[in-house]
Amino acid sequence: MPLSLRARWSRDEPVHACWITLPEPLSAEILARQGWPGLVLDLQHGAIDEAAALRILQVMHGLGAIPLLRVPWLDPGAVMKALDLGAEAVICPMIEGVEQAETFVQACLYPPMGIRSWGPVRAGLDGAAAYADSANGLVVPIVQIETLGALEQLDAILDLPGLGGVFVGPNDLAWALGHGPGSDREEPELLDLLLDIPARARAAGVQAGIHCASADYAHRMVQAGYRLITIGSDASFLGRAGRELLGSLEA
Amino acid sequence: MPLSLRARWSRDEPVHACWITLPEPLSAEILARQGWPGLVLDLQHGAIDEAAALRILQVMHGLGAIPLLRVPWLDPGAVMKALDLGAEAVICPMIEGVEQAETFVQACLYPPMGIRSWGPVRAGLDGAAAYADSANGLVVPIVQIETLGALEQLDAILDLPGLGGVFVGPNDLAWALGHGPGSDREEPELLDLLLDIPARARAAGVQAGIHCASADYAHRMVQAGYRLITIGSDASFLGRAGRELLGSLEA
Amino acid sequence: MPLSLRARWSRDEPVHACWITLPEPLSAEILARQGWPGLVLDLQHGAIDEAAALRILQVMHGLGAIPLLRVPWLDPGAVMKALDLGAEAVICPMIEGVEQAETFVQACLYPPMGIRSWGPVRAGLDGAAAYADSANGLVVPIVQIETLGALEQLDAILDLPGLGGVFVGPNDLAWALGHGPGSDREEPELLDLLLDIPARARAAGVQAGIHCASADYAHRMVQAGYRLITIGSDASFLGRAGRELLGSLEA
Amino acid sequence: MPLSLRARWSRDEPVHACWITLPEPLSAEILARQGWPGLVLDLQHGAIDEAAALRILQVMHGLGAIPLLRVPWLDPGAVMKALDLGAEAVICPMIEGVEQAETFVQACLYPPMGIRSWGPVRAGLDGAAAYADSANGLVVPIVQIETLGALEQLDAILDLPGLGGVFVGPNDLAWALGHGPGSDREEPELLDLLLDIPARARAAGVQAGIHCASADYAHRMVQAGYRLITIGSDASFLGRAGRELLGSLEA
Amino acid sequence: MPLSLRARWSRDEPVHACWITLPEPLSAEILARQGWPGLVLDLQHGAIDEAAALRILQVMHGLGAIPLLRVPWLDPGAVMKALDLGAEAVICPMIEGVEQAETFVQACLYPPMGIRSWGPVRAGLDGAAAYADSANGLVVPIVQIETLGALEQLDAILDLPGLGGVFVGPNDLAWALGHGPGSDREEPELLDLLLDIPARARAAGVQAGIHCASADYAHRMVQAGYRLITIGSDASFLGRAGRELLGSLEA
Amino acid sequence: MPLSLRARWSRDEPVHACWITLPEPLSAEILARQGWPGLVLDLQHGAIDEAAALRILQVMHGLGAIPLLRVPWLDPGAVMKALDLGAEAVICPMIEGVEQAETFVQACLYPPMGIRSWGPVRAGLDGAAAYADSANGLVVPIVQIETLGALEQLDAILDLPGLGGVFVGPNDLAWALGHGPGSDREEPELLDLLLDIPARARAAGVQAGIHCASADYAHRMVQAGYRLITIGSDASFLGRAGRELLGSLEA
Repeated sequence: MPLSLRARWSRDEPVHACWITLPEPLSAEILARQGWPGLVLDLQHGAIDEAAALRILQVMHGLGAIPLLRVPWLDPGAVMKALDLGAEAVICPMIEGVEQAETFVQACLYPPMGIRSWGPVRAGLDGAAAYADSANGLVVPIVQIETLGALEQLDAILDLPGLGGVFVGPNDLAWALGHGPGSDREEPELLDLLLDIPARARAAGVQAGIHCASADYAHRMVQAGYRLITIGSDASFLGRAGRELLGSLEA
Repeated sequence: MPLSLRARWSRDEPVHACWITLPEPLSAEILARQGWPGLVLDLQHGAIDEAAALRILQVMHGLGAIPLLRVPWLDPGAVMKALDLGAEAVICPMIEGVEQAETFVQACLYPPMGIRSWGPVRAGLDGAAAYADSANGLVVPIVQIETLGALEQLDAILDLPGLGGVFVGPNDLAWALGHGPGSDREEPELLDLLLDIPARARAAGVQAGIHCASADYAHRMVQAGYRLITIGSDASFLGRAGRELLGSLEA
Repeated sequence: MPLSLRARWSRDEPVHACWITLPEPLSAEILARQGWPGLVLDLQHGAIDEAAALRILQVMHGLGAIPLLRVPWLDPGAVMKALDLGAEAVICPMIEGVEQAETFVQACLYPPMGIRSWGPVRAGLDGAAAYADSANGLVVPIVQIETLGALEQLDAILDLPGLGGVFVGPNDLAWALGHGPGSDREEPELLDLLLDIPARARAAGVQAGIHCASADYAHRMVQAGYRLITIGSDASFLGRAGRELLGSLEA
Repeated sequence: MPLSLRARWSRDEPVHACWITLPEPLSAEILARQGWPGLVLDLQHGAIDEAAALRILQVMHGLGAIPLLRVPWLDPGAVMKALDLGAEAVICPMIEGVEQAETFVQACLYPPMGIRSWGPVRAGLDGAAAYADSANGLVVPIVQIETLGALEQLDAILDLPGLGGVFVGPNDLAWALGHGPGSDREEPELLDLLLDIPARARAAGVQAGIHCASADYAHRMVQAGYRLITIGSDASFLGRAGRELLGSLEA
Repeated sequence: MPLSLRARWSRDEPVHACWITLPEPLSAEILARQGWPGLVLDLQHGAIDEAAALRILQVMHGLGAIPLLRVPWLDPGAVMKALDLGAEAVICPMIEGVEQAETFVQACLYPPMGIRSWGPVRAGLDGAAAYADSANGLVVPIVQIETLGALEQLDAILDLPGLGGVFVGPNDLAWALGHGPGSDREEPELLDLLLDIPARARAAGVQAGIHCASADYAHRMVQAGYRLITIGSDASFLGRAGRELLGSLEA
Repeated sequence: MPLSLRARWSRDEPVHACWITLPEPLSAEILARQGWPGLVLDLQHGAIDEAAALRILQVMHGLGAIPLLRVPWLDPGAVMKALDLGAEAVICPMIEGVEQAETFVQACLYPPMGIRSWGPVRAGLDGAAAYADSANGLVVPIVQIETLGALEQLDAILDLPGLGGVFVGPNDLAWALGHGPGSDREEPELLDLLLDIPARARAAGVQAGIHCASADYAHRMVQAGYRLITIGSDASFLGRAGRELLGSLEA
């Protein structure tokens, strides 16, 4: 039985996860078999919908990778369905402020902490009663910090009861701040901002995560206190490896 | 031509329906062939999305089971699509009050009763003009009563023009009232509440439904005036029967 | 490399497109191979969801038909995903007024024009950096005019920065105005209204589109200044041709 | 309950059927709803495999069209599976002679008439025992006559016990005879051949079918005694109707 | 790591397995989660093709149930693909004699024992080199005994090098012997035959399996020496449980 | 319009192709967009069936990569279907000798060269009559040389009229010759054999291909005269890239 995200975070262990953007259970299985600690199903930008997510979550079961999932948008129905299908952590993108963040967190948790509706069709397969007791202690609601609104209300968001963590989306955050898109930002204004977030999160009793583009930057972010590092994707692995081999053949 | 839900309700007949939670047309066909009067496609908690719903609705056509469908959340686009694909009754979960209920009912009905958008791609296959004339008299919008807000505004909800019925979700309602999840409630506070609802619905000219876990409780709820009884699901049938046979083999 | 919708509109060329309502890449390929200038994937009324849209958008690539897509409802997550998967123009139905229209247009465009989130998983396959630079000049947000609210606020909608066009849905618009559903309207009240819209759109620097049911009416609407004509659908082609042949066999 | 193919043939009624080549249950449903007496799922040349056939057979159930299916090749496993999934008649292409024809017919029938393996997972849904009794009287094995070998051994094929019919494939037959492909042949050599087959079939107590390209030719073939006429396909309906409308728009 | 079929058989443990006939990974997961020691994917009579088998095999991974698979027919390509996708044991139906049995066994094993082609795309995911070394010791070729030919040549089949076991199909065997289809046969002629097979198999160093319809008969067959007992199916569980509940509701 | 395989071979150009083993059109599109000259859909060992092949062939259309396809086994129905769906070259594995090779080549070609059945449902979408004229000059039947039988009868195979090429499978060939599986063989016995084949093929007027595991070996094989080089696969790209990044993160 692999450790849950909450268990790993309680040991202050960083968790590396790569993105799943192809709606294909076999490519996800291949990555899970390589030993990735976590896989994030990206329903926001990836070519994955609820049906593909179900198949991939089923396949990941028992392979040891923590099943994280990013919903397309703040939609309580989609959040609850992701959890019913077996996601352990849900990332919600484009949160504009604490009110939206609270709606999201409430959707992740059963009463009295939240308003999640009962019906864990797959999540409760090993015992519905046990799941009712344990779900609120297992599920990890993660608010993405990538808009000006979320940035300005970060402390209020961090204080939300039941919040599991915050996750920095450097592309959208930088663009919203007047820079172009891109990861692994080195602009002092942005870097200062990024380095400050894990400490504020820890002070509020939650963890911070960030998307990175290189192993070096990922190492620095772990040093800075981030405990969820997303990096790479099925599509980018495939495209780069295919391009490189073709290049060497044509050389 | 099987009777519609409205026709059966106009005869005060109770309708039993089981839940479809597997995204598999063949298991749905098997249940429809057993003679179930209705099947409820559960897009809220079930592993069913719009694409699976389409395939199951197609397969149910002509097998006699009334096609009911629960949407994941109050989303007019999802409500209208369910109807366009051929659902006859739509159940909307987690309604918080009369305003949301009205939005839902309006989404189910064409002008002048509502704002449903025209385009019955599958529902109108036997004649679009005829469907335009008959749809508002066929479609059954059903508001789920499972939040404190809906409970408090129940009478206002029951008075909404065009409403077809209300449906009690005992798990979420009980949990919202401070009890744990579970069906077939016997707590006096809850039971009194449940027994009161059909009479209030009838007084408003609509029918009430409820989810049950046992045939005994279902019989009692029919006695109490409920006319839509949901009970059992493809997943629970499969799990229980598989477990029982295995148990007898290992005995 | 076929011309984009914006390029064709900049030449004042009318674009004819038919609707894709079957979730089947092969029927879409067959229509694209007949030379249709555009195909509109209808996620509102058609039996198409995001997964089917992905497959059809992939197949259309390189066949020359402009990929338009109508989302089911105003939902920024669905709008952004449609663009990430490769739609060039997005039509949003049932817009109630300028505020909703602005939300929609903002969802289509990257900063600083809008709030579209970065992650063009398929749209950026030929180069993410180039896509970041070109996307706002390529993508065409199209607001459907079919409610009283949108009609009343048409000028304000037309003045929205970044708007690409408006699209008249004659069925719902006529029904909202107290007539029944139907295309190719000849009622003077409606016809006057329809004939007025292209001029108002052009004055605001955008183009207008309309759904038609016959080639004759389509010709008249082009004369009237419309530059997007939707007409026919995979389902209607199939049904009519199948019925006619059967009729001639039974004659 | 629509009449079976055998029942219609016992009344000497001609049956018209069109080809299903798209792996899409919705286009098949649309055609079935137009009233086609039969639909032939083409697993040989169509883009249909076993999984698509299952979905289409499910959807056809109750719509009145007789479910015929052409297997890709003489493969007893594929023949038996088609029957288990609910096909009523199976057409086997490219039969080279009486020995292959006998293998095919045997695969369609339970002992003692044949060697079909027991397990009617879908075909027996309304009662396995009843199906065991009725299957051999319901199922219609149809041998396609389109090779020189089959033509030369036609009488021996027609005498096979259990055979339901023969079906002429004019394209391949003409090509094998040194002409090019094409339907509705008028070459005297070919026409004489075609006109002779129904009489020989009737003399052997079975019916003959043929593929036609026009309603006129179909009428002539019915006059000539053919009782299964295949004509048109989903793909051809779609392509022609889409092309014609586009032509009238561009005129 | 659950024990392999060969490991369990080396301990003389009986293995109970139920049939998977629905092309749905979620129903298979539900059954695997109930603790079934084995699941047999039925590509012969079940509505399962290669694509569905892939998804179900992926989902079963790590859930402890031994993945068995019955191919539709003796087809070396299908046998090898089943193994490449991760089946551990393959059952081949309708074998007519020792020659066909040998072809089947050869298709299951790599050189020098057989002619299986190299390319374990999924089976080798945990290490291709290790798989090359271990595959012939893991894979279990099982010949179904259900034709007169196989019965007559049973001893020769049992002596085939590399054979893993034989599996009695009582329906087809009984029918071929002049009785009707059915399991749990009590006719003396048949019962004697069935009771004799395990001893002959053991004498040849392999195990025998049989399909049963009741737990009682299954117990008797284990007593008789059978070590693979197939019983029940997803479809039969679902149909019976759904029918029984409906019956109690209508009582 | 990219050059066909025959056109490239007529210029003596080597064609590099990588294997598609995931049943996912999006990963195939990603590889095609990197500029691979050819992609080989592997229906033998890959997790690809006919339905997945259809989707991938559709997506490849217009992206410039030559669509090759390996069938699971010598099965004329599967060969013809692959061509009908749009494959340009078909590789047939595990051919045992010239008789099987001839059956395969005949299945690829229309009369009078072969016995391919008429019905190019997708291959003929741009014009059926034109396809009838051009198909035999476009389609490339490629016999895999990987058994002792094929090796011994290589010259007879190379002399088959209509043959397009031979393709060496080093894994199975080496294993059949008593070595273990593996590519890029350096054993003198094997290397001599491999280096000899292209010359023999050229002498017979066809080209030779081979599977390689490294760019270096691929360069050597081109030097040796091979004109089809298969190397890499979607699954191997994904696994290796995912593993390497994870390794650098954990370093």
